[in-house]
Amino acid sequence: MLELLKKQVYEANMELPRRNLVTYTWGNVSGIDRESGLFIIKPSGVDYDKLTPDDMVVMDLDGHKIEGNYNPSSNTDTHLELYKAFDMLGGIVHTHSPWATSWAQSSRSIPCYGTTHADYFYGEIPCSRSLTDEEIKNNYEKNTGKVIIETFSFKDPLHIPGILISNHGPFTWGKTPDEAVHNSVVLEEVAKMAYYTEQLSVTIQCAPQKLQDKHFFRKHGANAYYGQ
Amino acid sequence: MLELLKKQVYEANMELPRRNLVTYTWGNVSGIDRESGLFIIKPSGVDYDKLTPDDMVVMDLDGHKIEGNYNPSSNTDTHLELYKAFDMLGGIVHTHSPWATSWAQSSRSIPCYGTTHADYFYGEIPCSRSLTDEEIKNNYEKNTGKVIIETFSFKDPLHIPGILISNHGPFTWGKTPDEAVHNSVVLEEVAKMAYYTEQLSVTIQCAPQKLQDKHFFRKHGANAYYGQ
Amino acid sequence: MLELLKKQVYEANMELPRRNLVTYTWGNVSGIDRESGLFIIKPSGVDYDKLTPDDMVVMDLDGHKIEGNYNPSSNTDTHLELYKAFDMLGGIVHTHSPWATSWAQSSRSIPCYGTTHADYFYGEIPCSRSLTDEEIKNNYEKNTGKVIIETFSFKDPLHIPGILISNHGPFTWGKTPDEAVHNSVVLEEVAKMAYYTEQLSVTIQCAPQKLQDKHFFRKHGANAYYGQ
Amino acid sequence: MLELLKKQVYEANMELPRRNLVTYTWGNVSGIDRESGLFIIKPSGVDYDKLTPDDMVVMDLDGHKIEGNYNPSSNTDTHLELYKAFDMLGGIVHTHSPWATSWAQSSRSIPCYGTTHADYFYGEIPCSRSLTDEEIKNNYEKNTGKVIIETFSFKDPLHIPGILISNHGPFTWGKTPDEAVHNSVVLEEVAKMAYYTEQLSVTIQCAPQKLQDKHFFRKHGANAYYGQ
Repeated sequence: MLELLKKQVYEANMELPRRNLVTYTWGNVSGIDRESGLFIIKPSGVDYDKLTPDDMVVMDLDGHKIEGNYNPSSNTDTHLELYKAFDMLGGIVHTHSPWATSWAQSSRSIPCYGTTHADYFYGEIPCSRSLTDEEIKNNYEKNTGKVIIETFSFKDPLHIPGILISNHGPFTWGKTPDEAVHNSVVLEEVAKMAYYTEQLSVTIQCAPQKLQDKHFFRKHGANAYYGQ
Repeated sequence: MLELLKKQVYEANMELPRRNLVTYTWGNVSGIDRESGLFIIKPSGVDYDKLTPDDMVVMDLDGHKIEGNYNPSSNTDTHLELYKAFDMLGGIVHTHSPWATSWAQSSRSIPCYGTTHADYFYGEIPCSRSLTDEEIKNNYEKNTGKVIIETFSFKDPLHIPGILISNHGPFTWGKTPDEAVHNSVVLEEVAKMAYYTEQLSVTIQCAPQKLQDKHFFRKHGANAYYGQ
Repeated sequence: MLELLKKQVYEANMELPRRNLVTYTWGNVSGIDRESGLFIIKPSGVDYDKLTPDDMVVMDLDGHKIEGNYNPSSNTDTHLELYKAFDMLGGIVHTHSPWATSWAQSSRSIPCYGTTHADYFYGEIPCSRSLTDEEIKNNYEKNTGKVIIETFSFKDPLHIPGILISNHGPFTWGKTPDEAVHNSVVLEEVAKMAYYTEQLSVTIQCAPQKLQDKHFFRKHGANAYYGQ
Repeated sequence: MLELLKKQVYEANMELPRRNLVTYTWGNVSGIDRESGLFIIKPSGVDYDKLTPDDMVVMDLDGHKIEGNYNPSSNTDTHLELYKAFDMLGGIVHTHSPWATSWAQSSRSIPCYGTTHADYFYGEIPCSRSLTDEEIKNNYEKNTGKVIIETFSFKDPLHIPGILISNHGPFTWGKTPDEAVHNSVVLEEVAKMAYYTEQLSVTIQCAPQKLQDKHFFRKHGANAYYGQ
C-alpha cells in the first residue's frame, strides 16, 4: 500500500541521522497521500539503523492504524492535526536538533538576522506558547498540534515552514517529506548562526525588511529567479 | 568466566569513542553479574583501539581482582561503592565528555530546560559537593562513590541515572552497561543544549513541572506508552 | 571552451562541501581567463553531488552567457563587478559559512586578534555597509559588487582577500579559484577564533601592529621567507 | 640519517590533522636525538597529504641544516631555543588549534578548573607576555623561544608541558614527539572545557589545590598508580 510514498518517507527519515539532526530515535518524518487521505510515519522508538521501508506505519486522518507491524511515532497525533489544518502540507518533520531545540528551550522565536534565514523563512521563526497543564494532561500530542495551528492563525505555513515548541523542539514541513527535511536542516543552520550573531553584538537588529523581501521572493513565488 | 558480560562490557566501552565521549583513555564502563556478585570493568590506561573482550578485568565487591591480565580502571572503587549501595544498577559509566565535564567544572547542576532532558532525567541532574581534603587524601576513588551516594540520599538513581562530580566529570548508570552508555550520550546532549539555552536568555526558567512529568512518565513506569 | 579553467573552477567548487563551508547549494566559485575576458561560474541551485565540470557556465564581462546548459549562479553579477574593478583577481568565492556569516549578520568587521589572521589578512576583515532599499530593489546582485568595491576604495584586495556583506555572508578572492577557496577556509577559521577570543575577555585588544606586520610580510611580498 | 626518529617525527606530524589540530600547514612537530645533538623537524609550508618521512629536515643545535631537500619549518628557531634550554625535552609541537589559539589571542593563561587539566598540567597553563617591537623585528622566531624560557623561569616544563604565546598560539612538548602531540590534544580539549566552564558561571573558581595535587601525582612521579 502506497509503496512509493513509504519509500520516500523512509528515505526522508534516514536523512535525519545523516544530517546530524537526531541522536538515537529523537526524530520522525511523515508524508501524506492527499488522494486517499492516508499518511505514513516512522514507527515509535525503532533504531534508525534497523529501519526498513516496510516498517513505516500507514495511518488515516481519524488516527486509525491502517497498516504496519509497529506502533506509530508517539508524535503521530501532532502530525495528524497539522495535515488536517493545513492542506498544502505534504510532509512533516519533528526532531530535537540541538540548536533549534536550544532556542525552543529558551522559549524564544528566532529573529531574521540575514539572508540565509530570509531565503527560506519569511520573518521570524515563531516559538509557540507553553501548553497549559490541562493541555499537557489530556491529549498532549494532539494539543501540541493545536498550539502550532494557533500560532499560525495569521501566518502562511509555506512562507514560514517551521516552528519551535516551547521547552520542547522544532517541527518543520513542506510540500513533500523531502522538502520538510530540507527545511529542518536549514532551520538548524539558521538557529546556530542566529545564536552566534547575538553573542557578537549587544545591539543586534533584524535584517532590513527590503533585504528579507528580496531574498525570500527571489526564491519563492511568481517572480522567483533562483535555480534552474 | 562471565564471557557474555565481558563481551557486553567490552562493547559498551567501545561505544564511548564511537559516540565522541572520550579522548584517549578518559572513560570506563563496568557491568555487574548480581548472581555471582562479580563485576567487570575496563583496564586502566589501555588504548581503546587495542582493547579486546579478554582484557576486561573481573572484580568482586570486596575489591579483589578475580581475573584479568591488567590493573582495573583507577575508578574501580567508585564503581564498587555504587554497586554496593544501589542494587538496581547493572552498569556504570565514567567519562570526561566535554559538555558534561564543563558543567561539573562550574560546580553546577543541570536544570531541566526541556523535554529531551525530561525524557530521561526526572528533575535536575545534580552536581555533587566537593570532596574534603581528607576525602581526597585517603581512599579518593572510594570517597567519590560515597559522595555520589550522599547526593542521592533522597533521589531514585533510576529516575536520575547520572551525576556530575564537582571539578571532575560525569558518572551515569543503568540497568545494563548498554543503558548506562545510552544515558551518557543523552547527558552530553542535554548538557550542551542547557548551555546554549542559558546563553540565549538571561531570564531562563525550568520547563513547566507538568511537562517534565508528562515526558518522563510517557517513557518510564507503569503508564509508559512510548516505543514498542 | 576553456576546459582547463572549467576543471579548476569545478574542483574549487567541490572543495567547499569537503571543507564544510556550504550547506546544500549555498556557495559558488568562479574563475576568470583574463586573456579572453571570459569567466566560469557554478550553475544556480544545482546540487554539489550532481555537479560535473561540463555543468560550469561560461560568461563574458558584459554578463552574457557564452556557454552552458544551466543558468549561472544568482550571484554572477557580483562576481562580474569584482572582476571588472580588480584586475588582479583570478578567482572569487561566495559562501554562507556559519562563522563568517554570523559576523556578517552582526554587521561587524573582524578585528585582527592574532597571527593566524595576520598570516593572510593585513588588518581587519571589513564588513560592508548595508545596501539601501533602492540598491536592493534594482540590480541587487550588481549593487552587492559595487558596495564591495566601495569598501575597498582605500584597501588592496590582495592584502585583504575577503569581505563580509552586512546581514548576508562572506566573499573571498585570490589570484586563482583555488587560492580564493583557501582564503574562504582561512576566513572561517579566523572568524571562529575571533568569536571565542572576544568571549574570553571583555577588555580584548587587537594584536600588536608590529606582530601583524611581521606575520603578513613573512608570507607575502618581496621579503617573504615562509614556505619553499 | 636518524631514520627511526625521522619516522617518529613524521608520524607525530601526521597525527595533527587526524586529531583536527591543524588547518592546511598550520603546525609542526620536531624531535631530538640527544646523543648526536641533532633534531628533526617538518619542512615549511608543505601539505600534510604530500608529506613523507624523507621530507623531514635534520638540523643541528647551531641552526645549520644537516640533511633535507626542503627549508625547515619557519618556527625552527623557536624549537631550537627550547631544546637548548630544556634538556629533558625530546619533542616539541606548535599548532594554531582553535581553542588554545583563542585563549592565546585573549592573552590569558588557562586556569585549572578540573581533573582533566590536573591529570596533565600542574597548575595554570601560562600565556607568555607579548614580544616587544624589537624582539619581533629581529630574530622573531628565536625570541619567541626566549620568551617561553623566560615564562618557565620558575616552572618545571615537564609539570606544565605547554604554553600559549600571546596573540599567536600554543606550543607543547614532551619526552618524545609522540608525547608532545598527546599534550597538544589534551591542551585543546582542556582549553575548550575551560571556555565553557567560564561561560556557565560568573563566580568560577579554580579546582581545589588538593584535587589538583591528587590527580597530577596519581599519574606522574614516584607515587603514580594510574595505568599499567
